[in-house]
Amino acid sequence: MKTHDLKINAERLTSRLDALAQVGATPEGGVRRFAAGDQDKHARDLFAGWLEAAGLEVKIDRIGNIFGLRAGTSAAPTIMSGSHLDSVDNGGRLDGALGVLAALEAVECLNDADLTTKAPICVAAFTNEEGVRFQPDMMGSLVYAGGLALETALSTRDRDGVTLGAELSRIGYAGDMTPGAMVPQTFIELHIEQGPVLDVEKLALGAVEALQGISWTEIVIDGEANHAGTTPMGMRRDAGYCAGAVTEFVRRLALDLGGAQVATVGTIELTPNVINVVPGRARLTVDLRNRDNEALYEAERRLEDFCGELEAEQQVQIALTRLARFDPVIFDPGIVTLVEAAAGRLGVSCRRMTSGAGHDAQMMARICPTAMIFVPSVRGISHNPAEHTNRQDLITGATVLLQTLMDLAG
Amino acid sequence: MKTHDLKINAERLTSRLDALAQVGATPEGGVRRFAAGDQDKHARDLFAGWLEAAGLEVKIDRIGNIFGLRAGTSAAPTIMSGSHLDSVDNGGRLDGALGVLAALEAVECLNDADLTTKAPICVAAFTNEEGVRFQPDMMGSLVYAGGLALETALSTRDRDGVTLGAELSRIGYAGDMTPGAMVPQTFIELHIEQGPVLDVEKLALGAVEALQGISWTEIVIDGEANHAGTTPMGMRRDAGYCAGAVTEFVRRLALDLGGAQVATVGTIELTPNVINVVPGRARLTVDLRNRDNEALYEAERRLEDFCGELEAEQQVQIALTRLARFDPVIFDPGIVTLVEAAAGRLGVSCRRMTSGAGHDAQMMARICPTAMIFVPSVRGISHNPAEHTNRQDLITGATVLLQTLMDLAG
Repeated sequence: MKTHDLKINAERLTSRLDALAQVGATPEGGVRRFAAGDQDKHARDLFAGWLEAAGLEVKIDRIGNIFGLRAGTSAAPTIMSGSHLDSVDNGGRLDGALGVLAALEAVECLNDADLTTKAPICVAAFTNEEGVRFQPDMMGSLVYAGGLALETALSTRDRDGVTLGAELSRIGYAGDMTPGAMVPQTFIELHIEQGPVLDVEKLALGAVEALQGISWTEIVIDGEANHAGTTPMGMRRDAGYCAGAVTEFVRRLALDLGGAQVATVGTIELTPNVINVVPGRARLTVDLRNRDNEALYEAERRLEDFCGELEAEQQVQIALTRLARFDPVIFDPGIVTLVEAAAGRLGVSCRRMTSGAGHDAQMMARICPTAMIFVPSVRGISHNPAEHTNRQDLITGATVLLQTLMDLAG
Repeated sequence: MKTHDLKINAERLTSRLDALAQVGATPEGGVRRFAAGDQDKHARDLFAGWLEAAGLEVKIDRIGNIFGLRAGTSAAPTIMSGSHLDSVDNGGRLDGALGVLAALEAVECLNDADLTTKAPICVAAFTNEEGVRFQPDMMGSLVYAGGLALETALSTRDRDGVTLGAELSRIGYAGDMTPGAMVPQTFIELHIEQGPVLDVEKLALGAVEALQGISWTEIVIDGEANHAGTTPMGMRRDAGYCAGAVTEFVRRLALDLGGAQVATVGTIELTPNVINVVPGRARLTVDLRNRDNEALYEAERRLEDFCGELEAEQQVQIALTRLARFDPVIFDPGIVTLVEAAAGRLGVSCRRMTSGAGHDAQMMARICPTAMIFVPSVRGISHNPAEHTNRQDLITGATVLLQTLMDLAG
């Protein structure tokens, strides 16, 4: 049997996805598994049990990342694959879960076929990818890749003042392995797209070659609150109008820059927010993303320039605060080519694409060659109980992951 | 002594303004006297006591409006002047109070000079001008002018479910006079401008010849909430962008129409209002005002047209709901001329102007020739503890009111 003929056990994969979706299930059909909470513990227990049943060596590191190790015939560094088990509030059942369970499924297939790879294969579940309860997000992989001090991460507190360290101890996942101790040879993550591109273009698979850089800016505009009837247009310092002008500009900015540039005003708050009062203050946020870092800097500059001009023209004060800035990540072209080749052998449609969302793979790319595989999200919906990927697409994604892992592990 | 030499007693007027400002005084220096509440009762009691002390006949109508009647030598209809005693939450000390107490001061001056006019003079304080606790605003004068049924007004409820009728009975101001029973010959109201025009132009007085028409529209935009990173610009139905575009348009609309047109987006609310989510829904309000009703209709049409184009272009649904629509009011040119003449005799600067805010005079104009006198609001501030008018301007305004009343009453 040629290894490329190996097929996954679709029934095993989907039944495990179903079982995991029961953990923290919400009435709306979503899941609620906050990092290091009770439901996250149940999900971890279920997953760790499956790892053990598959004969893998289970390791937990000090930030709570879970690893299931399958030995290879050589002492080469491990080929790692995985994602996360935590979710947003009332999130979807596939976000994170698919990548973890598809990696496990690949290992199960190798077990079933009694195949041993040269390099060891490691199935990973990273702590707190979503960042809902503890910030920042992608914390487990960030700490693992050396981008955040372990003690800093463990001492972050949730809204109730409880630390992540205390919660990991409480649920039994404060391991003793040093994060990053096992540097992989490569890392690959299967994930739902969480966007509409594959679904709209009716493609089965995305070979993810890059991850967008992200720039978040808070803009606070101080004008003067005035009576909407008695203040002539020429005497206004209207913070609400300025917020509208920035919002209108932000879309134009993305269209002008073109390419992969996206730009969003997601929040606007006016003060006093009363129908007959000219707003005295506006607070809005701008989310800029591009896979080209120079273009992203250019977008930031143009936004600042526009705000500067608006400030002078409308006699308001405009303060910009950078809330977050992540450079784009370019994934490993060799792995991307392997993904495309696997799709080609299976005869499924595939395109190269850029991830618009952040993922653990983004952090792992700091320490080893990395790439991702996307499967379609129906209507692009994610972080929502309605998040869905067709069964055949799930199987295709998991099969391509299996074949790519075998290519990588030899 | 020529009647035009008559001067007001500035000390009496300002000490009464001070005394009234103590009723419902807030720590910030403002006042809180909601219609038919305990503080409104105290203000009414104080005012009614002054009316009686001045020898006026006190009448209360069924909507709680208070009238103090000074007999004339003829049986002509009364010359009425007044305003309101209620306030917004933490409002200014002059809004309404000035117009009521300056009308009373005019009568006191006639008493002091032992002068009797041909027509009777009536000092009025209307119920619930502000409309904070019970809606609509300008309720007492609206009912008096026959624009709202008495029973409807009395049965309106505050947030706690208490009716205005019950509250008027409780505080002892459910009178027995039928609203509108005494139709005035003319009505004139002195008020602070509540806008910046007189202050900016360094003028002492405004002869108010018109009151803007008002059009309030709620706009609800339904698009689709999507991930801000993974949704390409061309696949968005961004309700937040549309809200920004409408806000930007609304200012442009006012500038394009020119004249007295003002336009304000006072409120914007986005859903889900999260930094990294393309807004799926936006709700905003548009306040359009113009003293030219045809121009106001044109502004409404252009806003509707713009929303229609935006709806098609951005693939969203936009629903417009008219929340309020009041036609402009043109005041009586004869009274306006008398106000200008009084200002001229006093040698104070004066301009004709349009009121941007609603006032009881607007309702009284339905049943008799009406006009208003404005005094400057420092920096245009109103509905705020910082509301202020210089002492000399208060005296000027009250003196012009006195002289105009004497001209009208003969």
